[in-house]
Amino acid sequence: MPNPTAAILIIGDEILTGRTREGNAHHLAGELVKVGIDLRQIRVISDDHQTIVAAVRELAGSHDHLFTSGGIGPTHDDITADAVAEAFGRTIDVREDARAILAAHYAARGVEFTAARLRMARIPEGARLIDNPVSGAPGFSVGNCHVMAGVPNIFQAMVAGLLPGLTGGAPLISRTWQVMVAEASIADDLRGLVGQFPDLSFGSYPFVQDGVYGTNLVVRGTDPAQVAAGHAALQAAFPEGK
Amino acid sequence: MPNPTAAILIIGDEILTGRTREGNAHHLAGELVKVGIDLRQIRVISDDHQTIVAAVRELAGSHDHLFTSGGIGPTHDDITADAVAEAFGRTIDVREDARAILAAHYAARGVEFTAARLRMARIPEGARLIDNPVSGAPGFSVGNCHVMAGVPNIFQAMVAGLLPGLTGGAPLISRTWQVMVAEASIADDLRGLVGQFPDLSFGSYPFVQDGVYGTNLVVRGTDPAQVAAGHAALQAAFPEGK
Repeated sequence: MPNPTAAILIIGDEILTGRTREGNAHHLAGELVKVGIDLRQIRVISDDHQTIVAAVRELAGSHDHLFTSGGIGPTHDDITADAVAEAFGRTIDVREDARAILAAHYAARGVEFTAARLRMARIPEGARLIDNPVSGAPGFSVGNCHVMAGVPNIFQAMVAGLLPGLTGGAPLISRTWQVMVAEASIADDLRGLVGQFPDLSFGSYPFVQDGVYGTNLVVRGTDPAQVAAGHAALQAAFPEGK
Repeated sequence: MPNPTAAILIIGDEILTGRTREGNAHHLAGELVKVGIDLRQIRVISDDHQTIVAAVRELAGSHDHLFTSGGIGPTHDDITADAVAEAFGRTIDVREDARAILAAHYAARGVEFTAARLRMARIPEGARLIDNPVSGAPGFSVGNCHVMAGVPNIFQAMVAGLLPGLTGGAPLISRTWQVMVAEASIADDLRGLVGQFPDLSFGSYPFVQDGVYGTNLVVRGTDPAQVAAGHAALQAAFPEGK
């Protein structure tokens, strides 16, 4: 059975204007590999209601899971929850369970529960809450769309709570063989080797280190024995590597 | 006249499997702001021919410019040039001007011009070459699609050569006002302030620093006087900031 597929949708003008270097997608990509969910696309879009609605519909409709990051805080530019509700045809309002979580969180810390903070208890009808152990305000899952905060430590905590409950497949295994030659020097031999392992994926990633050209050859697959065979073939073909 | 729009397409399994943290989109986003080209979307997809063809068609068709990164090297997984040619209905073959650039580059360095390296002279019919001062092999522009290498220093050099030749608009200006309070504490006042400046965009970005909550308030626009007025309004509304 093929692994479930996924897309990540990052919502935020701060990425598109170059102000912030996005890191949540990179973190989640690494976690999805471990649980056997195949990430097919990452998309970054702006804080625009109709843009979010359209992207959520398209990506949730074409993947087994859609994970979103950003736009669920208390300010005017936090519009993700309403857009996701519209994309799934759900109503959205302050929900009692989310309100209670926030109330308990603020009460324990002596923080005032303002109207702006109450906005973070707006949850689409029928959604399941995602725990936020960092700052209280929960994320949520509607259908196959998992809506999480953009602040990196909160995003990571939500991912850690969410992923164990999702059904994954065979984890993707990868091994790297590094050779200190330009990739063009080995391209022909590599092409021949790749053809011998139809169930594996091979990537070639050139780099320059202290002025010297090198290439990382990465073999990926879900069967440990096959990946080991592919890695051994790389070692045999390019014995000068490490 | 509104600014031209753009999308960035990053091609590479190494990003989707969490092996590499992408940085080219962040670099180009910052450069596009300076020349007044509005970045609307960043998309990361895998090294799959039909996936690339479909994404290039969609994004080039819906933006004034499409910039791609990755997949134009000498190895079996470098399939971007062929996919872009197909997306634009162009033929592709080794082109004499690109071959001559590579031949001169390798001759000057005493490097053998192999069949694998010749693959990097495959350029779609009618494309304009993009200079690669780092490693010779050129990028190219077909229609409104600008195809560049994924290796960061080569990508950056290609961007530096390409952007001055594109027609931009008014550069986006942004100013930041940092307040050391949680964003929920200022959300209501901020919402009122935002409504007074319909031509400006305001973003609110929470952070935690040494256990203390803070918020960066960013005002963006193309008119320097308006941006200054928006920034002054932030200072007046939240005088404890800096």
